[in-house]
Parts: sequence; structure tokens; C-alpha cells
Amino acid sequence: MASTSAAPEIDKDLMARLARTIRGLAIDGVEAADSGHPGMPLGCADLATVLWYHHLNANPADPGWKNRDRFVLSAGHGSMLLYALLHVAGYGLSLEDLKNFRQLESRTPGHPENFVTRGVETTTGPLGQGFANGVGMALSAHMMHARFPDLIDHFVYGIVSDGDLMEGVAAEAASFAGHHGLGRLIYLYDDNDITIEGETDLTFSGEDAGKRFEAYGWQVLRAHGHNVDAVNAALAEARGDLDRPTLIVCKTTIGFGSPNRSGTSGVHGSPLGAEETKLTKKALGLDPEKSFDVPAEDYAEWKRAAERVAELQKAWEAKLAAADEKTRAAFLAHYEQKLPDLKALRPASGGKAVATRKSAGAAENAYAAALPWLAGGSADLAPSTNTLIKGSDSVGAGSFGGRNIHWGVREHGMGGICNGVALHGAFRPFGATFLVFSDYMRPAIRLAALMGLPVVYVFTHDSIFLGEDGPTHQPVEHYAALRSIPGLSVIRPGDDEESFVAWEAALKRTDGPTALLLTRQNLPYLDRANAGLAAADGLERGGYVLRDCESDPKAILIATGSELHLALEAAKRIEGARVVSMPCVETFRAQPKEYRDAVLPPSCRKRVVIESGIRQGWHDIATDDGAFVTQETFGASAPAERLAERFGFTVENVVKTAQELLG
Amino acid sequence: MASTSAAPEIDKDLMARLARTIRGLAIDGVEAADSGHPGMPLGCADLATVLWYHHLNANPADPGWKNRDRFVLSAGHGSMLLYALLHVAGYGLSLEDLKNFRQLESRTPGHPENFVTRGVETTTGPLGQGFANGVGMALSAHMMHARFPDLIDHFVYGIVSDGDLMEGVAAEAASFAGHHGLGRLIYLYDDNDITIEGETDLTFSGEDAGKRFEAYGWQVLRAHGHNVDAVNAALAEARGDLDRPTLIVCKTTIGFGSPNRSGTSGVHGSPLGAEETKLTKKALGLDPEKSFDVPAEDYAEWKRAAERVAELQKAWEAKLAAADEKTRAAFLAHYEQKLPDLKALRPASGGKAVATRKSAGAAENAYAAALPWLAGGSADLAPSTNTLIKGSDSVGAGSFGGRNIHWGVREHGMGGICNGVALHGAFRPFGATFLVFSDYMRPAIRLAALMGLPVVYVFTHDSIFLGEDGPTHQPVEHYAALRSIPGLSVIRPGDDEESFVAWEAALKRTDGPTALLLTRQNLPYLDRANAGLAAADGLERGGYVLRDCESDPKAILIATGSELHLALEAAKRIEGARVVSMPCVETFRAQPKEYRDAVLPPSCRKRVVIESGIRQGWHDIATDDGAFVTQETFGASAPAERLAERFGFTVENVVKTAQELLG
Repeated sequence: MASTSAAPEIDKDLMARLARTIRGLAIDGVEAADSGHPGMPLGCADLATVLWYHHLNANPADPGWKNRDRFVLSAGHGSMLLYALLHVAGYGLSLEDLKNFRQLESRTPGHPENFVTRGVETTTGPLGQGFANGVGMALSAHMMHARFPDLIDHFVYGIVSDGDLMEGVAAEAASFAGHHGLGRLIYLYDDNDITIEGETDLTFSGEDAGKRFEAYGWQVLRAHGHNVDAVNAALAEARGDLDRPTLIVCKTTIGFGSPNRSGTSGVHGSPLGAEETKLTKKALGLDPEKSFDVPAEDYAEWKRAAERVAELQKAWEAKLAAADEKTRAAFLAHYEQKLPDLKALRPASGGKAVATRKSAGAAENAYAAALPWLAGGSADLAPSTNTLIKGSDSVGAGSFGGRNIHWGVREHGMGGICNGVALHGAFRPFGATFLVFSDYMRPAIRLAALMGLPVVYVFTHDSIFLGEDGPTHQPVEHYAALRSIPGLSVIRPGDDEESFVAWEAALKRTDGPTALLLTRQNLPYLDRANAGLAAADGLERGGYVLRDCESDPKAILIATGSELHLALEAAKRIEGARVVSMPCVETFRAQPKEYRDAVLPPSCRKRVVIESGIRQGWHDIATDDGAFVTQETFGASAPAERLAERFGFTVENVVKTAQELLG
Repeated sequence: MASTSAAPEIDKDLMARLARTIRGLAIDGVEAADSGHPGMPLGCADLATVLWYHHLNANPADPGWKNRDRFVLSAGHGSMLLYALLHVAGYGLSLEDLKNFRQLESRTPGHPENFVTRGVETTTGPLGQGFANGVGMALSAHMMHARFPDLIDHFVYGIVSDGDLMEGVAAEAASFAGHHGLGRLIYLYDDNDITIEGETDLTFSGEDAGKRFEAYGWQVLRAHGHNVDAVNAALAEARGDLDRPTLIVCKTTIGFGSPNRSGTSGVHGSPLGAEETKLTKKALGLDPEKSFDVPAEDYAEWKRAAERVAELQKAWEAKLAAADEKTRAAFLAHYEQKLPDLKALRPASGGKAVATRKSAGAAENAYAAALPWLAGGSADLAPSTNTLIKGSDSVGAGSFGGRNIHWGVREHGMGGICNGVALHGAFRPFGATFLVFSDYMRPAIRLAALMGLPVVYVFTHDSIFLGEDGPTHQPVEHYAALRSIPGLSVIRPGDDEESFVAWEAALKRTDGPTALLLTRQNLPYLDRANAGLAAADGLERGGYVLRDCESDPKAILIATGSELHLALEAAKRIEGARVVSMPCVETFRAQPKEYRDAVLPPSCRKRVVIESGIRQGWHDIATDDGAFVTQETFGASAPAERLAERFGFTVENVVKTAQELLG
């Protein structure tokens, strides 16, 4: 499919002047901070200027415009390039902000943070992540275009570096983008032959990046990065192919303009210093005596560029207004993501033993039917993770109308792409795999938590009780490891009804990611009404009294997920034992002290925590007088029942542990 | 460089008979367990038989032979293929073992575990890891060949799957192998067009794997996986190019022989069932009434194959015996890895403020000079991690005599390759990056811990105090997350002398991996002798009393790494305060109770833990009566001093916290 975008006419002198100013600002920001990376902004100023001035349809006056082109600076260490562009382009980032580069509470942190700076589309810095985020934005754009062809037809642009391309997460995301034909994705590759340890030759140049991307199914173009005509033409040509993402390989000189340090690794991550700054400014035709200097003409020129886009947005607003009401409402619903009364949609308990991966799958399906903006899939484990949205199509090359995304065996790519989908704003993404493989995607989970993105992770096969696959597949440390990430909700439901509420909690959360930890194996049915157990809605507070004793508790059994039923059975044999279900300990810790003390009375310190993972992080709940039935070593390959005996996850052992405490 | 290995003559009928037996064993093992993956063994039996019978120079009678070819089953779910081969080839794995597939304490766990089963070279299952391990084995082989050309000239073979090739870790390792020209690496790619969710078409086939590997610099050959002549010829041709690793793309039919399920995703991970097992055996020409059936001729044939290799080993032993004594001793030293008195080699303290990344770099260099088998490098951060071995060459294409390995921006690949190097046994590998990027390589660290491999990780920039790079680069949860991995030693030294001892502890550990957590910023010099502080050797017990008070302690300040000096300064202002340095809490927990109680007397429960990470995992050390000066949120971009004030890492705040405890 060809688009009709011709290359705009450009004024090379103007581009050179604008780029020169940006180079000056980048140098000055790094010098003022005495910290930062001047090499990349100097090397990429030319191509970035052409892109931002002539091609990027983003409106500084309204950075939230839904059909704006997205720009991703995957090489986030080049943040001063982005800040300089945001300043001149009119995003409201002041010269004062630039002078405060890398200072506490400034709007110009060391790496771009989308939650700090207006106009920054994603938080980048950890290499390869921005690359994957852009793939997610483009995926979402294609999916929205399939639904609303008149309303979403934008592109996603980015600048990616050698380091990005070396990262596995970028390889996975590139493979996904190529296979899925994400033609709305266009990356400029800053091919400068330099990495931190020296020339890429040391470790990378044997590889032909262009050929690799062709193998992924990308369109690969080449343009010298300091030849603005060539970059301009390549960007237009890139848009001409809507069926393939495009990599434009741009040879650049790192630290361009620095007489003594351009083309060396020394200019990558260290300020130029006063002397070299002067020499560089002189070489670039800037006044060496001035800093943070922006000619008035530059502002006027960038205003003209902004006006061009403002017109585009105006036309788009008119189109949205002219759309029939149903279309408009459906379109906006994707961005508002309002929830109906989920409880009313909640599936009924089947009244029998079931794995939480199955009940969670039922809940996901029940809610997905009412939430057209919920989309996702599994890293090639859908039959095991139970995450397929029934009745919905697969998202595939040339067909973006469905909601089932096949991430492939690419957990890390999945995580990074989910972040991009969430950032794009039109879909709530979920990604599924076995819990043990959450390790593969951890850097992306961390960034979701840092950015506060409401991504949902469905992690099944959540304990040694997956059984025969053995220790390589059995999570043990993963509960603690995930809970350690600030801002990530980790929920491990203990029966079918808790699974339903867990999905609801994940959907209700809008300010950060949630991980659902689900069993492979069946768990007993808890007949809550007839057995005098509390309702599963208690999960919303993180932990709750599931089964109480007659008088003040003498002992408290605290359990999560597949160990909950052990606690219940054990409690029947221990006088004065209360059972607390604690599916989300972080949420519980955030409750008012009153509530926490009601669930875990300070007077009762004989507490047993039961969870098939390491105890790390549970000690404060158990207290110094508590005990643990936990899993401190790697598991083993065997049927689940044998593992339960071997590692002490039996009612008998829980009873024994509690009775030893009680003396 | 061409090698002279011609293709051996093969008997196609024999190959077919041997493969048929292996298929029968694989089916029977999975059926007996009622669990496992029959598809891959059925699909790969032909190519594996050719490889093992005619090409793999490994001696079942001596699986430890140093110049043996290595075999890596990266697609570890096909473990029954490997177990069947180990059985018939004579590795001492009995039919009884095969019948106990996936049972508790059997020698045939669900995925291959090198620490359980004789002849298994590495633990595989998590996709992509085996691929990277093989790269590490080949790297080590090339490095040994450069040093001892007459003694090490073996190859590394492996079977890799679609799933392996989709993983980023394999992409990184493949790029490394191609760039470094690891011609001793030969992988058979089981190209069966099927993954768990269905046909690879869903998510992968747009990509041309062969072309991608050519872009990485690999030799790419093609051979139909059921044509033993073609596989045989390709294996010989692969060895002909010693400068490039080889990928042999083998089209196979997953579940080959199963009339109703071959070529489908249904045969990947589920037993065939009784009915289809019979039909399959019939189709393959096996007796459907027999199970675990191995014709006597098969054993005789495989014995012949083993005799061929035993002759090779005999010749090799003669060569080793004939080598001059110096060469032989130097060769064996690589495998014995005996340590001299490290303390005697320990650098002297510089007597001034220094970053632990610098002092650790000095220690590494001091020890490396005496340990020719220590080799490693950084993931493109050597100037920052201070890990370069001075006076040693870079390991590069065609030049393997050095010890400085440039991993490139490939943390995960680095982790997986380090595991392979350690498994190969001739080098002690280390890998370095910023602590925050330990997340990128976590699956490989986990496998090092599970396998008990003595890999050393050098993680610098270990806290928010790296400063201006901001929260994307600032570890906060990583101390807890790493400590959660069973068997990983995490050491965070607090001054230059502790850095030296930390490296010694890492080198002394032979049964598992060690992570060194090191600062970017300078730490004050601790004048131990003159200030009445204990010697840094106390680190060997995990934690020790660094500075005691006159009488019984009223309060204990417990700190690690860059927070140790805060504890020391604060203690001067608190009456009765003891300072405990706790660089490795796992090691401390493993000490006898007596020692632990001497360091942390149970009578003194007013304890303050000071560490610039989340408190998770410290509560048992602090007790219910303790307090924390820790970092519970993500950091921020600013100079380190500003962050210290902002987040409370000041002497004042430590004093205040302790005094509040003391009331």
C-alpha cells in the first residue's frame, strides 16, 4: 500500500541555521550541568531538525492531540537534543529549564521523562526500550486506523542508536514490527560507529544492521545524516510504504562540530569543557561568547512550522465533529476508557475446583466483551495462559481489526510494546507469559511502574506446583522480586472469585501496572457463603479476614494464592486461628492503620505466612514472633503433589508450624 | 580459514533404525510421565542421530574430557530426545531412568539439568539461554585454541528452535558470535513452522531467519531435517569455515510419524495418548505393543560410535602427555583454577576517598595478573565499570589470545555467554554493567545460580547516588531483587578495603555466582587502623562489627556500601551505638547462631538499617523494634548531594532516626 506523501521542499540554509542553534543549546545544557551527553545531539541535530520542522505533525500548543505523530528518542541519553527541540518548537520549556538540566525538580532530567516534561512521549534511557515503545505506539495507531480510518492515520518517528539496535528487546520488537507490517513506524538510525568502549568495530560492525532489518521485513533506506535533502527525501519515501516499518540508516559524526572530539567515544558521555566548547561553537559558526542563545528568527521559523500543524489539527477536529455520533463516541471511548459496573459483569463461580488461570481467563473475557479498548495476548503461550479473547480476531499483518495480539516468544519485546500501546492511549494492553519468564521482561515492567502506565501482566504457572517442567520453569523468588518494584501491584488470587476481583482491580487501576499471579493447577472451590467465609471483594484492600475464629485470634494464618486453601484447612484444626487472605500485600500496607490492625491485631503476633515463594518481604507481616511455610530453594521436576509433600506445603505442616508457635 | 573435515560416509538405513528407536523412547517417556513434549524429539530424531553418531566427538565413558565436542539442547523441552540419546550412547542413563521421566529425584527431570544428569552440558528450558550458553562454550574454545592449539580444537553443536531464535538473548548472542567469528559453533535450527499458539506464521514467518543470521556474519546452510545425507554433508561443511559460526536451517515436521498430530501445535507440549502412540509407532515401524524397547543391535552400533571417539581421546591424552611440562601445567591450570594467597596480592588502600568501582577495578587487576584464567569485560561500559584488565588484549575476530571481552550493549547475551564460558570450564568469566541493567540479564543470572556456576557480575553505579542520569538509571529495588535469587551472593562493599575482600570472596566461591555492587561516587577513606575499626576481612562472614561502643550496645547501626560511612559518622553522635557493616546479608544469615548473636545481640533490638534501596528483606535483621533509612521510591535526576538531602541519606537523619528509636 502506497501513501501519497511527497517530500516537502526544504531550505537547506534554514535547516542549517536551526540545527546550529540546537547544537548550541545542547552544548550549553551539558556544560551548565557539567554532566550529560553532548555527542548524540551534535550528531543528530541536522536530521532531527528536518524531521521536526517539516515532517512531524505534532502541535506544541496541544501535545495531547490524538492524531499527532509520535516522536521517540530511544537514545534517551541525547535528552538535550529533545529539550532543545521542545524549547524552540514552542512546548513551553523555557531557557531557564534548559539551564537547569539535570537538576533536582527541573523539567529537564538527565533522561527524558514523560511524566515530567510536556511533549515528551515516553521515558527513555535504558537502551532498546524506546525502540519497543515506538513499536507499541505504531501498533496502536494501526489498530485505531483499522477502526477509525478517517481519524487516526498518524506516524511514529524515532531516533535509535547503535546501542538500541544491539539490545535484544529491540531485536524482538523489530521482528514483531516487521512481521506485523507496522508501516506507520519510521526510525532514523544514528549510525555513528561509536559506542562507549570505542568504535563499534570492537563488538558490532561485523553485523550489517540494514540487512538484518530487511530480514525482519522492514523497508531499509539510507541517507547521510548531515545531508538534509537526503533525510527529507527518505522520510517521505518511508511514508510511501504503509505495509512495512522503515529504518533509515543515517551515517552521522558523533559530536559533529567539535574540532578535537567529534568522531570519538570521548564525546559520547562527557561535557566538552570550556575550551572545547568555544572551539566547537566557533567551528559551527556560533558566537563562542554567548550561551543559551536563540536568534529571534529561529522562534519565528518554528512558529511557522507549528502553524502548519495547527491547521492540520483544526481540520482533524472538524472531521471529528462531523463524524456521526456513534463513531465519535466509540472513538472517544478508546481514550476515556470508562469502566462500567464490573461487578455486574463478573462471571459466576463454577462451584468446583478450578485453576486461577482459568477463572482469570473467564473474567478477562467477561470484561473484554464490554471494553472494546482492552487488547493483548500472550508470548506464545495463549493455550496455557488462557488469555485469548473469544470472538475476537488475531492482530496480524494487514489486519488490525482484532484484539488478540500474538507477541511471539518475545517477552521483553511484549513488555516494551505494551508500554508503547499504553502510552498511545487508545488501548489498555495486557501481556501474558509464565511467571518465571517475568524475568525476561523486567526492565519493561520497571519502566511501566516508573511511568505509571496501567499495563496488565497475566503471569500464570505461578509456583513450583506447575510440577514436571522443573526448576527452570518454577518461580520461587519472583513474588518478592516483583513486589520490590515501586509502584507495581502484584496480586495473587486464591480462588476463582478472587481471580475475578483481581482482574477488576487491575482494570480499575489507572496510575500504574498490575501483575496477576495465577496457578496452573486447580484450586479447591471455596464455598464462601456456606462456609462462613468473607466475600472476595476484600481483595480490593489487599488483605482481609477470610475466616475468623469465635473469640480473639490466638494465631493468624496468612496466605496467598494456591496456599490459601491450606490455611483454611489448617485453621479448622487449630483453636483460635484466623485466616487472612493477602493477595496484594502492597495494597494492604497502604491501608489505614486501623484497618490493618483490625485484620492483623497487634496483640496477636503468632502468625504464620504461607506462600510457595521465598519469605523475603513477609517478616514485618509475620512479626518477630511469627513463622513461615515458604519456599527458600529452587524447586524440582515432579508431579505437584509430590512437590507439596517434599517442600512442606501440606495442611499437616501448616498445622505443625502453627502449633509450634503456640507452644 | 578452512578445516579439512570431510563428511563421513553414512548408512542411511542404520540412521533410520537408530532414529526410530530414539523416537520410540521419547514417546514412551512422555507417555509414562503423562507430561512432556513429544513433538520436538520426533521432529529432530533424524538430525540428532546423524550428529551424535557420526560427528559429535564426545566420549560417553568420560563426559569430562576437556577437548570433547559440546552438545547443547537449547530447545530444552525436547529433553526426552537428549535422554534417549544419552541412554543409547552409553552415558549410564538406564531404561529405568527413562521410565522415571519427570519424577521426583529422577535423573530425567522435565528439562535437562546439567547438575543432575551425566552428559548434560547445560541446563536449558528458558528459551534462548542454551543458544547463548553454546556461544560461551565456543568463545572459550576459541580462546583456549589460541593458547593451546594442539590441545583444544573441538566444536560446539546445538539444536535450536523457532522459540530460541525469537528471544532477544539469542539475538544478542548470535550477533556477538558473528562479530567475533566463532567458527567452532554449529547450530542445527529445527525449523518446524510451529509454535505453541499455532503456526509461526502468526507471529514469525515474515522474518527470514537465514538472512538475519547472514547479517550477523554467520555461515547459513540448509538441509532438510529428515534427509540424513543432507544433514551429514552440512555438518561437515559447517566445520569447513572456522571463521564463522554456522546455522544449518533444517526444515522438520514436528511430531514426525504421528498420523494425526504431526505438523500441528497440539503435538508440541502434550503426550500423544495411548491411541495415537500406537498409531505413531505403527507408522514408524515400531512394535505398538512394546515400550522402552531398544534392539540389541542399536547398543552395538552406538558402542562402535563411542569407540571411535574413545580412540580420539586416547590420541589426545598422548598429545597432552607429550607436551612440555610448562605447557601442560599452564593448560591444566585453566581447569583447576587454583587460587594463590589472594591476600598477599591485595592492593594497598590509597588512603583517600575513592569509588568502590575504582578500588574493585584495582583488585580485579591485581588478582587477574596472577590468574590467567580470569577473563571478562563490560557491556559497553568498560570506562565506567573499571573492568578492563590492563596489559591484556581485547578478544576480537580472529584474535582470541586476550582476556578483555567486549560484550557490546548486550547485557542478557553477556549473562548467557558467561554461563557458557563457566560451563566450558577453562575460564572464570565476569560480566559488568550498571546495576540497574542487571534486570536485562536476570534470567541468565538465575540459571547461573541454579547451575551453581561461579560467574562474577560487576555491577557499578549501584544507587541513586549515580545522580544526574536519573531514575531510569538508578537502582532502588535491585538489591532486594538480586538477593531474592536463591544461591546468588550479593556483596556491596563499603570502602576500598571491603572492595578488595569482596573480589576475593567472589573468586573463592566455586559453587555459585557472585554479584559485586559498586559505587559510581567516591566514598570516604576509612582509616581502620587509626580509627579503631575492624579489618575488612570481616566481610567474609557477610557482616561484622566495624566499630563497637564501650559497653553493651544500646543501638546498632547496620549499613552496606555507600551508606556505611553515614553509620560511622552517626555513631559518633549516639551514645552506645555499634556499627555493623553488612556487605553480604545472605552470607551473614548462613553463619552459626553464635556468631550472628555476637554481631547482633538479641538483647539489643534498637537497630537502624541504612541502605539506599528498598527495605524489603531487612526486617528480620532490624527486628520489630528497628527502623530504616532506606529508599522506597524511584530516585530523581540531580547531583548526588542533593539527592542525599532529599531522600534522607544524611548523618543528621540517621542520628535522628536512631534517637527516635531510643526515645
